[in-house]
Amino acid sequence: MAASPEPGCPLCHEDGGLLIARYGKFRIIRATGPDAADFPGFYRVVWNEHVAEFSDLAEADQLLCLRAVSAVERVLRDQLAPTKVNLAALGNMVPHLHWHVIARHDWDSRWPAPVWAAPQRAADPQRLAELHARLADCDAAIAATVAQIF
Amino acid sequence: MAASPEPGCPLCHEDGGLLIARYGKFRIIRATGPDAADFPGFYRVVWNEHVAEFSDLAEADQLLCLRAVSAVERVLRDQLAPTKVNLAALGNMVPHLHWHVIARHDWDSRWPAPVWAAPQRAADPQRLAELHARLADCDAAIAATVAQIF
Repeated sequence: MAASPEPGCPLCHEDGGLLIARYGKFRIIRATGPDAADFPGFYRVVWNEHVAEFSDLAEADQLLCLRAVSAVERVLRDQLAPTKVNLAALGNMVPHLHWHVIARHDWDSRWPAPVWAAPQRAADPQRLAELHARLADCDAAIAATVAQIF
Repeated sequence: MAASPEPGCPLCHEDGGLLIARYGKFRIIRATGPDAADFPGFYRVVWNEHVAEFSDLAEADQLLCLRAVSAVERVLRDQLAPTKVNLAALGNMVPHLHWHVIARHDWDSRWPAPVWAAPQRAADPQRLAELHARLADCDAAIAATVAQIF
């Protein structure tokens, strides 16, 4: 799609992270860099075309998007055993529709606050390393699960 | 619905805010108290039954839920002219499925960070008062819009 890439929009010009799967209308990426340091199981469903708000999508596309979000959530639950999954479409900084799908654990640095709040404790290097070690399997499971749906 | 209210879960036992509309499977409330002080246009779509994760819902219920979220978002855009709408289903504190639908403005106290981040500036009392003055109309428009869908 990406019928009208927006000048200066990073998600119109880059994947936005490690590419896990790409379809005609959306892609799934795993966050890299600072966003992922404390939260290894941090994925995003990015709508390929530049739209700002979820309600800009036609209902069939909203359903497609949320089926992808739900599929990623389900795999995170199976693979990473999070205490909770957090879903969010914010876009204040990058107003190009993308859904955060984040595995949260009750030992993580911000729990129980959202990942965007101030840290409440130091990250736990051993537990983070254990999660990191599962990410390759998690990536593969997401790609396989989504391929069965779309 | 609320087939199995969970002891101690506030959203199983209270509306969770100012009730705007209630249907068999979900309700729409406007946040009150501290959550709403800096963000007058802060609504929630609360699933009536106690489920923790979005992916716990059957796909037909996911669609129902997201149609409600999208309808609220659309009304907020029409009524409050936000810079951006923020959507989130977190539930770390209250693991009972509820979607935050929040009108954000580029002058608000946390912009462009999420509402859960630390304040970046003082709230603007005059602009907040202007938004507050529109909330009764916004509430009514949400109720009317949702009644046309469900």
